[in-house]
Amino acid sequence: MKFKNFPMVPRVVFGRGSFDQLNEILLPKRRNDKAPFIFLIDDVFENNPEIISRIPLIFDDQIIFISSDTEPKTVQVDALVSRINEAFDEKPSGIIGIGGGTLLDLAKAVAIMLNNKGTADQYQGWDLVKKDAVYHVGIPTISGTGAEVSRTTVLTGPVMKLGINSDYTPFDQVLLDPELTAGVPKHQWFYTGMDCYIHCIESLNGTYLNAFSQSYGEKSYELCKEVFYDQSLDEEMSRDKLMMASWHGGMSIAYSQVGVAHAMSYGLSYVLGTHHGEGNCIVFDHLEEFYPDGVKLFKAMKDIHEIELAKGLCAALTDADFDTMIRVSMGMVPLWENALGKDWQQVITPEKLRGMYEKM
Amino acid sequence: MKFKNFPMVPRVVFGRGSFDQLNEILLPKRRNDKAPFIFLIDDVFENNPEIISRIPLIFDDQIIFISSDTEPKTVQVDALVSRINEAFDEKPSGIIGIGGGTLLDLAKAVAIMLNNKGTADQYQGWDLVKKDAVYHVGIPTISGTGAEVSRTTVLTGPVMKLGINSDYTPFDQVLLDPELTAGVPKHQWFYTGMDCYIHCIESLNGTYLNAFSQSYGEKSYELCKEVFYDQSLDEEMSRDKLMMASWHGGMSIAYSQVGVAHAMSYGLSYVLGTHHGEGNCIVFDHLEEFYPDGVKLFKAMKDIHEIELAKGLCAALTDADFDTMIRVSMGMVPLWENALGKDWQQVITPEKLRGMYEKM
Repeated sequence: MKFKNFPMVPRVVFGRGSFDQLNEILLPKRRNDKAPFIFLIDDVFENNPEIISRIPLIFDDQIIFISSDTEPKTVQVDALVSRINEAFDEKPSGIIGIGGGTLLDLAKAVAIMLNNKGTADQYQGWDLVKKDAVYHVGIPTISGTGAEVSRTTVLTGPVMKLGINSDYTPFDQVLLDPELTAGVPKHQWFYTGMDCYIHCIESLNGTYLNAFSQSYGEKSYELCKEVFYDQSLDEEMSRDKLMMASWHGGMSIAYSQVGVAHAMSYGLSYVLGTHHGEGNCIVFDHLEEFYPDGVKLFKAMKDIHEIELAKGLCAALTDADFDTMIRVSMGMVPLWENALGKDWQQVITPEKLRGMYEKM
Repeated sequence: MKFKNFPMVPRVVFGRGSFDQLNEILLPKRRNDKAPFIFLIDDVFENNPEIISRIPLIFDDQIIFISSDTEPKTVQVDALVSRINEAFDEKPSGIIGIGGGTLLDLAKAVAIMLNNKGTADQYQGWDLVKKDAVYHVGIPTISGTGAEVSRTTVLTGPVMKLGINSDYTPFDQVLLDPELTAGVPKHQWFYTGMDCYIHCIESLNGTYLNAFSQSYGEKSYELCKEVFYDQSLDEEMSRDKLMMASWHGGMSIAYSQVGVAHAMSYGLSYVLGTHHGEGNCIVFDHLEEFYPDGVKLFKAMKDIHEIELAKGLCAALTDADFDTMIRVSMGMVPLWENALGKDWQQVITPEKLRGMYEKM
């Protein structure tokens, strides 16, 4: 058996208000006044001077606001890389992603593609990246995806929704400031938090699990439960703990994998553009067969927070749509193997998946 | 408030049998055939071909066996650095520490001192190291110290037992193979495991705690309890989980600190040479006043495993010995502040400490 030599984020700051340390962190990483820092920021902050005024811009540094209304795409990465290459004579000193999973994944992918030839879709898969990325920093403003610690960046490409999984993907620096998550709308808070919860359920119930991933997954699960089910925390502590749940949840994937919900949710996102967190929730709600205890607690948390999940998403789909959805989902081989073992195709057939999708 | 930009170990392998991947890990780090890897190995393995035959020696690579009967010393680090500098024309490609906390701390300190001028005692303290260390790898063979993830290397110097705390201290690579801990004698297994348990109690009950450290500390505490109190695990799983307890316990110190037991144990080690883990146990057994629940569970675990702690250690000490012990212990200001707050000196006086030491 071969074990992964897992790349961890080599630097992390945690603390309420630590966002104000960004300047000090970036300063020694600036190569010169012609090599700017590029800040990719969720456009929900565009009219938020409380956040934007604290971005330490000097010389040619640039903010690019990006909508997270749609999931990140390989063509979007390619366009950002072209835009940056055309605007500056020198490679940037660094890329800083500020936002949720979409912004963090874009920042990771742009940092990789600034140093690697071709287009982003050529690197979707496992260990296809050959050159180190530009220095890149992740600053989550919503908790749950685990994108801040993962070695993947999930992108929708021309053929697949699939991550660029590589040792060069993880951030060089992460800044965890729970205060940045204060203004997240309730439904997003729930969907993204549940992304983390579902990670944990899938990881802890998977065949790939070992004690490393288990310890992170169990802690993340407990923290999710504290935040969404027990509800005994004040708001500040709840934000702190959800940020740590996301962190540990991301780490729990190091030697394990996600499972059925993510595999099916990828298909949903690819065809319908459903957001990752919301898609996971919609799928997971139907997975009693695979994760009975996890789904039971999920439904309880959904009730507590009065979350109504979208219904009838697949009602108007054509056979061709279903076929694409099923192809994308069944392409997630490691996820299915983790969930159900090597013989997963004896359980999961195109017909079975179609029947499940039709209920959503 | 300023938050530490914590340096994490950037690469980790976890898995039973992963020790066999060492060659593959080191290969790309070898600069040339004149720049050897130096393996610092606990001499308990000297006559253990099952381990030694798996060390991937080529060219001028060298094994140096080191006894862990005594705690690591600054003069020992200086001697090792001189020996390596004299034996080779080039700086080593890397230093690999294989053993418990003593070997791991020596490896970290030697890697630092190969690139920094002067003697190791000049760097005891916080952030005194100015140059990056030589590439260094940590491979624990006993679980509990957390030395595999910490940013310190605790050394006994001419004046103090104090760590070289720096951003350059952490390993560049850690390999966690629980099978390497299979032959640890029971009392060492207990003392070193309890070092971790005591870390957690001190961290979780400290004034420095935040949600980052708390989440790691809680998980580590739970794993210690599973291993030493619940005892429902088979041997393999018990080793796996204790290795993870140590890892998380080390991380829990990132934004917190240890406390009363460590502060007093440092004094004990300095004057009497008491081993770190054993010293912590001897001290902690007397700390009901500070950690009532933690000490209660500790005593229960001590009973379960039929551990007899040494008594009367301080019986023959002179006043001068006590003064030294108290000076070293009271010098650990951050530990006392974490345990008891800024006004710790209102509780902890030389007289109070003397009274406590006299009971040990």
